[in-house]
Amino acid sequence: MIEFHTAATPNGHKVSIMLEECGLDYRLHVIDLSSQAQKQPDFLAINPNGRIPAIVDNGFPVFESGAILLYLAEKTGRFLPADAEGRSRAVQWLMWQMGGLGPMMGQLNVFKRYFPEHIPAAIERYERESYRLFGVMETRLADSPYLAGDDYSIADIACWPWVRAHEWPGLTLANHPRLADWLARIGERPAVVRGMQVPPRPDMSGDGAQRFVERARTILA
Amino acid sequence: MIEFHTAATPNGHKVSIMLEECGLDYRLHVIDLSSQAQKQPDFLAINPNGRIPAIVDNGFPVFESGAILLYLAEKTGRFLPADAEGRSRAVQWLMWQMGGLGPMMGQLNVFKRYFPEHIPAAIERYERESYRLFGVMETRLADSPYLAGDDYSIADIACWPWVRAHEWPGLTLANHPRLADWLARIGERPAVVRGMQVPPRPDMSGDGAQRFVERARTILA
Repeated sequence: MIEFHTAATPNGHKVSIMLEECGLDYRLHVIDLSSQAQKQPDFLAINPNGRIPAIVDNGFPVFESGAILLYLAEKTGRFLPADAEGRSRAVQWLMWQMGGLGPMMGQLNVFKRYFPEHIPAAIERYERESYRLFGVMETRLADSPYLAGDDYSIADIACWPWVRAHEWPGLTLANHPRLADWLARIGERPAVVRGMQVPPRPDMSGDGAQRFVERARTILA
Repeated sequence: MIEFHTAATPNGHKVSIMLEECGLDYRLHVIDLSSQAQKQPDFLAINPNGRIPAIVDNGFPVFESGAILLYLAEKTGRFLPADAEGRSRAVQWLMWQMGGLGPMMGQLNVFKRYFPEHIPAAIERYERESYRLFGVMETRLADSPYLAGDDYSIADIACWPWVRAHEWPGLTLANHPRLADWLARIGERPAVVRGMQVPPRPDMSGDGAQRFVERARTILA
C-alpha cells in the first residue's frame, strides 16, 4: 500500500494522476498547508524539504514530485519508454518541467497572487518566462503528439497540471493552439479526471478565490 | 564521442564534473551566451529550450543538466546506486536540486546582480528561500556524508556547483558547518577540480565582475 501525502496543487496532482493512471492502491493523507502541517516532525521524517507531495511505499519514503513520477514509472513499467533513448527523452522533458515550467509559473503565481507587494517588473519577468516556456511546448508539439514523442508519458503528466492552471496567474493559451489541444486531449483521460479530484481543488466561486489567496499568504510568510 | 555544449555556469559545471568523474571522452563547445548563440537554430535543434548545457552522444541529443547527469550515470553505471531504493534516493535529491536549489539561487542571482530594478522584497524572498534550502542540506548531512547516503552521487554533483557559487549573490555558509565541510571535501576531488575548468570561470578581479554582470544583463533582456 502506498501512503500518499498531498494537497490540491499542480505538484500534488501530478502524483494523484500518476497513481490513478497506474491503477495503484493508495491511502490519501491530505496535508493542511495553511496549518503548516508540512513543517511538522512527522512529515519532515518523510520529506526533509517540508513540501507536498510525498509518498511512502511499504515504508520507503519518496519526495519531490518528479522523483515520485520516475519511481512509480519504474515500479510499474508504465508511462516511460523502455529503451535508453526514449527513456531519456521522457526524463529530459520531466526535468524541463521540474527546473523550468514549475518554478517559473510558481514564481508568477507568487508575485501575481500572493506577494504582499505589487511588483510589476517581477510579474512581467515571470509572465514572459512562462510564455517562453509555453512556446517551447508549442514548438515541440508540432513534431509529436506528446512531449516525449508518440506516447503519453510522465513528461506529460508532470506538465499537464501546471498548464491546466494557466488561468490562475492570468495566462492564456490563445496563441498556443497545439498546447491547448494537448491540454484538452489529456484532460479527457479518465485517470486524469479522477486524479484531479484527489484532493479536489478548492471552491474558487464567490469569495472562494480571495479566501484561497489569504490562506496561501500564510504559507508564504 | 560526446559533443558537450556548455558555458561557465553552475548548470554547465555539473556536467563537466560528471564527464570528468566518469572519464568519458568529450569535445568541448563553449557557447557564447552574450551573443545569444544558445538561441540559434543549430543549438535549438539540440535543445529546444535554448539553454546550456546540452550533450550529443553519438548523434543522440540530451538537454537539461539533471537529465544529462542521469543519462551519463546510466550509461556508465557510475554515481548512482544500482538498487531501486538507493537509486531513488539519489534521484530525489537530484530533483530537489533541479526544482529547488537551482531555481531559487538562480532567482536570487537575478534580483541581486542582474535585474535593472533594485527590489529589496524580491531579494529578501530568494535569500530566505536559499538559506532554507541550505538548512535542508545541513540537516541531511548530519545523517550521512553525502546527500543520497554513504556514497558520492549525481545528487552531490548537481548541488555542488550551486553551493560553491554561494558568494556571488552574497550568501555565507557561516551557519552551515556541515555543508561547508561537504563543499570542501568534494572540492578536493581531482575530477571536480578539472571539471571546474571546463570552461574556466570568467576573471572576476578588477572590473571583471562588473563586465560579467553587464554581459549577463544582455542575456536577461
